[in-house]
Amino acid sequence: PVFPRILGHEAGGIVESVGEGVTELVPGDHVLPVFTGECKDCAHCKSEESNLCDLLRINVDRGVMIGDGQSRFTISGKPIFHFVGTSTFSEYTVIHVGCLAKINPSAPLDKVCVLSCGISTGLGATLNVAKPKKGSTVAIFGLGAVGLAAMEGAKMAGASRIIGVDLNPAKYEQAKKFGCTDFVNPMDHTKPVQEVLVEMTNGGVDRAVECTGHIDAMIAAFECVHDGWGVAVLVGVPHKEAVFKTSPMNLLNERTLKGTFFGNYKPRTDLPEVVEMYMRKELDVEKFITHSVPFSQINTAFDLMLKGEGLRCVMRMDE
Amino acid sequence: PVFPRILGHEAGGIVESVGEGVTELVPGDHVLPVFTGECKDCAHCKSEESNLCDLLRINVDRGVMIGDGQSRFTISGKPIFHFVGTSTFSEYTVIHVGCLAKINPSAPLDKVCVLSCGISTGLGATLNVAKPKKGSTVAIFGLGAVGLAAMEGAKMAGASRIIGVDLNPAKYEQAKKFGCTDFVNPMDHTKPVQEVLVEMTNGGVDRAVECTGHIDAMIAAFECVHDGWGVAVLVGVPHKEAVFKTSPMNLLNERTLKGTFFGNYKPRTDLPEVVEMYMRKELDVEKFITHSVPFSQINTAFDLMLKGEGLRCVMRMDE
Repeated sequence: PVFPRILGHEAGGIVESVGEGVTELVPGDHVLPVFTGECKDCAHCKSEESNLCDLLRINVDRGVMIGDGQSRFTISGKPIFHFVGTSTFSEYTVIHVGCLAKINPSAPLDKVCVLSCGISTGLGATLNVAKPKKGSTVAIFGLGAVGLAAMEGAKMAGASRIIGVDLNPAKYEQAKKFGCTDFVNPMDHTKPVQEVLVEMTNGGVDRAVECTGHIDAMIAAFECVHDGWGVAVLVGVPHKEAVFKTSPMNLLNERTLKGTFFGNYKPRTDLPEVVEMYMRKELDVEKFITHSVPFSQINTAFDLMLKGEGLRCVMRMDE
Repeated sequence: PVFPRILGHEAGGIVESVGEGVTELVPGDHVLPVFTGECKDCAHCKSEESNLCDLLRINVDRGVMIGDGQSRFTISGKPIFHFVGTSTFSEYTVIHVGCLAKINPSAPLDKVCVLSCGISTGLGATLNVAKPKKGSTVAIFGLGAVGLAAMEGAKMAGASRIIGVDLNPAKYEQAKKFGCTDFVNPMDHTKPVQEVLVEMTNGGVDRAVECTGHIDAMIAAFECVHDGWGVAVLVGVPHKEAVFKTSPMNLLNERTLKGTFFGNYKPRTDLPEVVEMYMRKELDVEKFITHSVPFSQINTAFDLMLKGEGLRCVMRMDE
């Protein structure tokens, strides 16, 4: 509805200049622009648990800067609108300081750029929210980049059995690189996939992370966790009309159901440390980057995404 | 379906004798019989998180001892069946060692007996599962004994605002003794009670504990918690056909939904410490005991319960 606008998020960049009153960044700083912000002043930012900043929470319908409500882009004197506060399909952009994570300047921007949305979303869903224990069993629903990042988190946490669930059997081979030990295709079974998983695991998985946004997968992810201690974490964004339905007895038998947004990472406070995990080689980012094209070939990147080929295609702005 | 049987749980007693192989208890020990057990050997007992013992989990349809599958009671040579492993409407009973919590012998049994079911269920739901922080806002749905125990837990945890929700306005006065600062009767409002609570609390309560077992109250308890950090805990047992329904966006906005059984207390491991909380005067048990009758007047106790008068009526076995 808001057009014309400059799209794009999940990026890396270097500060070119700062506006009046900005003290947290100086020209030359390396930053990751994030689609959701952190004002550090609202109740959410002050809570240890939340990253849903009141001021800078994602809003796809807002095409202007917070503050003066104006766009910073024009063409022939007419405004071009912003997109989720980032508008990174551009060599230069204007971003609220609350939506920029200042990172280690030694980190290669053409690698760590992928940490500014999907990879951190999946990784944090597992590490910050599901929190599997060493030796536990984890199910991941949906093996796109977010699901594989959730899987990487399970591997990093020491899960000993990691079950990938996807409708596309071709996903298994790639998922093995992310720690997948078992693969279940719901289409191969006549019974609901949650029952298949409960039978495979002697009563249920310890943790499940849902990364498809499909309501049936959300319900299955919850109903496949073990009673007594199982935790299911919802990551995928559903249709607006979707309704989550389950028997309350599934809850009373001591299961936990949670949702997360951006892996519960606070963008400015926590993303620099995710970059450090990469720098210390605890987190392998390269395996998520399957393609790279110059910015002029952006339509090739869209084609790859639409065909479901590869995980992340980095666009190089300097060519 | 299992008759004749000796009913009764939530009690206190003294060990008269022990069976072959029992080493954990000796005659003279003071114990609380519990309707659910702890074998200390199954996956649940070995988990730090669960109290849903595989061997001794509550089963209202089982009228015999675990092990040999026989009843220990007879009348005129015919068996009388057990009830949830306790059968405490009796001066003498036979109980599996896994269903007996050995407690401090100085604790008055006619007081701490009420800790062996409902009070611990509510208290633990708040202290062990909802875990409100100091200064937080907590909503309690249903102000019977379990709900008031959940409320007592909120007060002990340092909650500064405790909102009681009940259809009976007469409950408010009593609830004040348990820390209730605000009272909401859903019948006084045309909009759903979750919306009333969200408006009262500038976005939602920090924690909600549901102690009615009514599905609408369960959904309201979840939907009234704050995004970003809110936790709802279900305690009340619903009808078998009840379905919990909510928009998955309520979860994705970082709300948590959990259920609990017996307040997540492991009967043998944890109940002795709940008794110690009473002994140290951190937990006031007396205010839950509104009536006391000799065992011969058991029908008076049932009448009080059916009329909803009082909270707990202790039956004295020694008169």
